[in-house]
Amino acid sequence: MHIKNKIEVCFSPAVFQYYKDSNAIVVVIDILRATSAICNAFQNGVEKLIPVKTIDEAREYKKKGYIVAAERDGYVLDFADFGNSPFNFTEERVKGKTIVYSTTNGTQAIQMAESCYMVVIGSFLNLSYLCNWLVKQERDVLLLCAGWKNKFNLEDSVLAGAISEKLIATNNYSTMCDSAVASLDLWSLAKPDILGYIDKAAHRTRLREKGLDDVLEFCHTPDSANVIPVLENGFLVEIGKRHIK
Amino acid sequence: MHIKNKIEVCFSPAVFQYYKDSNAIVVVIDILRATSAICNAFQNGVEKLIPVKTIDEAREYKKKGYIVAAERDGYVLDFADFGNSPFNFTEERVKGKTIVYSTTNGTQAIQMAESCYMVVIGSFLNLSYLCNWLVKQERDVLLLCAGWKNKFNLEDSVLAGAISEKLIATNNYSTMCDSAVASLDLWSLAKPDILGYIDKAAHRTRLREKGLDDVLEFCHTPDSANVIPVLENGFLVEIGKRHIK
Repeated sequence: MHIKNKIEVCFSPAVFQYYKDSNAIVVVIDILRATSAICNAFQNGVEKLIPVKTIDEAREYKKKGYIVAAERDGYVLDFADFGNSPFNFTEERVKGKTIVYSTTNGTQAIQMAESCYMVVIGSFLNLSYLCNWLVKQERDVLLLCAGWKNKFNLEDSVLAGAISEKLIATNNYSTMCDSAVASLDLWSLAKPDILGYIDKAAHRTRLREKGLDDVLEFCHTPDSANVIPVLENGFLVEIGKRHIK
Repeated sequence: MHIKNKIEVCFSPAVFQYYKDSNAIVVVIDILRATSAICNAFQNGVEKLIPVKTIDEAREYKKKGYIVAAERDGYVLDFADFGNSPFNFTEERVKGKTIVYSTTNGTQAIQMAESCYMVVIGSFLNLSYLCNWLVKQERDVLLLCAGWKNKFNLEDSVLAGAISEKLIATNNYSTMCDSAVASLDLWSLAKPDILGYIDKAAHRTRLREKGLDDVLEFCHTPDSANVIPVLENGFLVEIGKRHIK
């Protein structure tokens, strides 16, 4: 019998402890906007990202001379160089650089999964590239949605469904996880018109109210980035450039 | 402008703290099988249910002479009179009685919401009756899915969608909650064939493996019960019989 690898989906960092699997590859998803920005940063050649949890840590790094991308609730922090819009991570700004990165939800989800087998970053930007890579690893996959302040969110769940669909289509994965089933179903509804579907999402409204919704189309467009950002010793690097191979 | 009441859906007791609203009516949902059993018990005339969290509490009540319904992971505890299959709560057994009730997920969700404005019990059994009653209360509604050991589950989320749909159809409710939107979408997929849809759920498989899946059809059939079980001073009573009116 062909033993398939398992897919699970965790809808909130607050329930991660119930899904945690130290042998799984964890894919952290925070579509609006952390993991989209991270993928774009690596696509544009950033050398290393240092994810930090607190504003104080980000400020300390700034004092030491680091470039800092930091925001809370969608607003750029006063001491930061820029916020977490993917559009900030231009080649000109980031190529070959090390950048400190702190956001509302994304960073915390990344650090939370640190003890698992491997933590990689997922977004629509690297959807196909990530799935092709995952399949080669022949391991269980846990999709960790960053959500919004520990609440479920629609856009992260929909991408979890898109990733699950691609993995299951290879016939090497199966799932007995209800949240994976729900993600697949939500993705089936969203797929024909992703932006139209995501228009229902609460965070879409929050971003619009702050004039930050310019990134929506970019963040929901598949396959602009051929990168797998991976967590290594607390830093994010491109998978080809990590030291532990 | 007509101010609508708010609907929110919480997919797991583990994230309840992020959704908690002391002014809302909380509807606890644990389709397989706690809240279905509770509704059936009240439909069959039980006087009072005492929800208890731990096995030890249930055992203490048993020693004092109470009738005890208790299970863990779908198995009846050795000292209990019966488990939490809705079919156990026959009129003959429960009419006019006080029964102690402990289950894996449901009881904990009920007690967790105790500090909110009101806690009522929802299931497919009392779907229409509950929604008609909710609409008259003119209050925000928080649908709390008991889930499975703090994980998301499909059947509870689908009922949350069914309740949300009925409330929104009255034009007196709206939602900005992504999990409510997801529930509505999952319900839209499940509605044409609820049992067929729920066949995908993990807990359906768990029950089948234990030979406990005889309740599936009953637990997913709307409107067999015209009752609103409500939490009052730590006990569940029928809403018409509570002392605080």
